Amino acid sequence: MKQMELKGLMPRQSIGWFDGKVKYIDQRLLPNELRVVETDDWHVLARAITTLAVRGAPLIGVTAAFAVAAAALKYSVNGLKPKLEHVIDSLATTRPTAVNLFWALEAMRNTLNNCKNPESIPSALISKALDIFKDDKSRCDKLGDFGASVIPQNGTVLTICNTGFLAAAGIGTALAAVYRAFDLGKKPHVYSCETRPLLQGARLTAWELKQADIAFDLLVDSVAANLIRGGKVDLCIIGADRIASNGDTVNKIGSFQLALACGNFGVPFFVSAPLSTVDYSCKSGADIPIEERSMEEVIKIGGKRITPKGVSALNPAFDMVPVDMITGIITEKGIFSPPIIFPR
Amino acid sequence: MKQMELKGLMPRQSIGWFDGKVKYIDQRLLPNELRVVETDDWHVLARAITTLAVRGAPLIGVTAAFAVAAAALKYSVNGLKPKLEHVIDSLATTRPTAVNLFWALEAMRNTLNNCKNPESIPSALISKALDIFKDDKSRCDKLGDFGASVIPQNGTVLTICNTGFLAAAGIGTALAAVYRAFDLGKKPHVYSCETRPLLQGARLTAWELKQADIAFDLLVDSVAANLIRGGKVDLCIIGADRIASNGDTVNKIGSFQLALACGNFGVPFFVSAPLSTVDYSCKSGADIPIEERSMEEVIKIGGKRITPKGVSALNPAFDMVPVDMITGIITEKGIFSPPIIFPR
Repeated sequence: MKQMELKGLMPRQSIGWFDGKVKYIDQRLLPNELRVVETDDWHVLARAITTLAVRGAPLIGVTAAFAVAAAALKYSVNGLKPKLEHVIDSLATTRPTAVNLFWALEAMRNTLNNCKNPESIPSALISKALDIFKDDKSRCDKLGDFGASVIPQNGTVLTICNTGFLAAAGIGTALAAVYRAFDLGKKPHVYSCETRPLLQGARLTAWELKQADIAFDLLVDSVAANLIRGGKVDLCIIGADRIASNGDTVNKIGSFQLALACGNFGVPFFVSAPLSTVDYSCKSGADIPIEERSMEEVIKIGGKRITPKGVSALNPAFDMVPVDMITGIITEKGIFSPPIIFPR
Repeated sequence: MKQMELKGLMPRQSIGWFDGKVKYIDQRLLPNELRVVETDDWHVLARAITTLAVRGAPLIGVTAAFAVAAAALKYSVNGLKPKLEHVIDSLATTRPTAVNLFWALEAMRNTLNNCKNPESIPSALISKALDIFKDDKSRCDKLGDFGASVIPQNGTVLTICNTGFLAAAGIGTALAAVYRAFDLGKKPHVYSCETRPLLQGARLTAWELKQADIAFDLLVDSVAANLIRGGKVDLCIIGADRIASNGDTVNKIGSFQLALACGNFGVPFFVSAPLSTVDYSCKSGADIPIEERSMEEVIKIGGKRITPKGVSALNPAFDMVPVDMITGIITEKGIFSPPIIFPR
């Protein structure tokens, strides 16, 4: 990958703050085009979240924090605080379920409220956004370290969706384990489920792994159980969109069938996520609502209809994996195995 | 569906013999276009099999038989027999795995060999081809009757791939049960897996069910386990590409994950296939080779690449479901439950 193409972003970096400007990879165009967008307009960043130009819970949180910081530089000091409160409220409506979005915006709001002098607001908010960015990077590194410890030499790792650097400020969650194992010379081989309907595995994970020269095979989602039965998979690692306090994990649709097959054939099944993904208000997975998304995502691929007009399709975006099907949840504070009690 | 569009084919009919001409639906164009091709050229029919314009094991057999009959009308009586032997040999190379292809061609070859008078060859072959056609129709009807008996009133039926009239001379195999249940007023509701990579569920089953006004939802393949756990599926019925003599069943990739989920949640899992699908030379599923098809089918959808260049993909076309995961195999001679001994 040429440095020029990344416009200052480093390899394995999908977003950055550059002297008042935010640069991010427009993920909708991948893998066909690597376009780095540069903006100081918080509206552009809000739209990037809404339209999935940036996605992945940790990355959404970081993007929202950068958007607030960019807005703080744009407006005059007069009436800055109410304007920024409006910005924060608007950003909170960009996506409904990403936990990190609300967590990051709350941190920005607290910083804003703690500024006694209006002139100090911009620098305080920039500093806080960079803290959130660095904090996420650091969590990703730790997820990578703990995750790599469960990957054997020449290990084969099954995964779904995209959980690499395109999903976070750092090197990712589940895929961080693979990156770290690769860097340690463990020669991991990845099996990447294509992840219908939105094909994040085929589009994004394949692109990341190709860039990194990590060996992998792409597969349609229904091949996974066959592969697991065939003894081809050493372990499975997935990310998480929300984790209940007992460890029940909600993640991309298709995660449950992977856990089921792993459980049947004694293949270890791991979740990798920062502790900010834990929703302590949910006692179990039953408390986590499963978003039903537009059926357009199923009946069209790349804008082209694949089924007759008027067909009805189900499109639950997420799957719930009960904690008793999970070998361990990899976090920045170590790997938790059932029965799980997370630190608060 | 207008009668005109079908050019003489009846509703729920994908192939027919019309006074020396064969008419068939070009399934590659569905669901976007319903094109009925009319030909008296056996080369065209051979290409239709090779290019998947016609597919589904029973339908391939019938198409090959019609192709031999059409060839018998084309050539002069002089040297007709060796010419037709060449035609039969050529047709046998169109697809490697479809059992019915070889079975139908063998029947045509026997009929040819039994003709003492060269002038009687065309009428004998036409008669035999029509017998094969009618025999398949009749088997489908019986599969439908036995299959409908296991579908409860308002029952929800999960299925994969296409096993309806587009896959046979009659109303199909697994989908025959749904058609018959519908005709009996049982109001079945179908959950149709889209069936990556070639999307036969989204393209063909959805088209058939829409035509028939049978209620259904389309789903990406990885939703199935979630749906089964949620208690939404009363039973699963799949077709078969080859069945070992012990009942182990090879069918479309994705079939195994369905059987696994059904087994875990006590949902009955049926296979529906004519007894001609049984390969008595295979003692178990381990004897049945699993075809690995071109990775192009995975990395492109509708001719459009969905993943970066140079990506490697696995593409096993079939899955093996062990007989002990099967509730019953629905045949034209009744439903067989494990331990299975098929009639010969």
